[in-house]
Amino acid sequence: MKATVVVRLKSEVLDPQGDAVRRALGTLGFEGVKDVRIGKIVEIEIDEAHAKDAAGLKARLAKMSDEMLANPVIEDYEIKLDS
Amino acid sequence: MKATVVVRLKSEVLDPQGDAVRRALGTLGFEGVKDVRIGKIVEIEIDEAHAKDAAGLKARLAKMSDEMLANPVIEDYEIKLDS
Repeated sequence: MKATVVVRLKSEVLDPQGDAVRRALGTLGFEGVKDVRIGKIVEIEIDEAHAKDAAGLKARLAKMSDEMLANPVIEDYEIKLDS
Repeated sequence: MKATVVVRLKSEVLDPQGDAVRRALGTLGFEGVKDVRIGKIVEIEIDEAHAKDAAGLKARLAKMSDEMLANPVIEDYEIKLDS
């Protein structure tokens, strides 16, 4: 089973990397770009034997995200399960 | 209008960052993680005046991705338009 964790900077946190991309896109001639935010997408392949209990799996993914994949002080995460 | 570009390493390209995360999750006690791949998610806010023609906008986003957001040699990208 595949699970996806999308990690984004919280909206109140400045994103200098996104700002740099926004400016660079302007320089390259792309008009109308108002804002750019850059996040991470973590795609996790989970053994079927460990993926039978969807609620338990979601809880474990949330724990993984809190402990390792995201920095909860400045980042939010979103967990998606694909079957 | 919001557009999202998801940039992933091509499947035939090794992902050392993802491998490191997979091993670290094992060390932290999370079982059943077979594979981890890490990509980028670029969220672009586009001025409504520049977003009227969806096909044209998608073509411009593809050009942005080819020229700047992704490295087409080792990465694939996927474009999504949210209204």
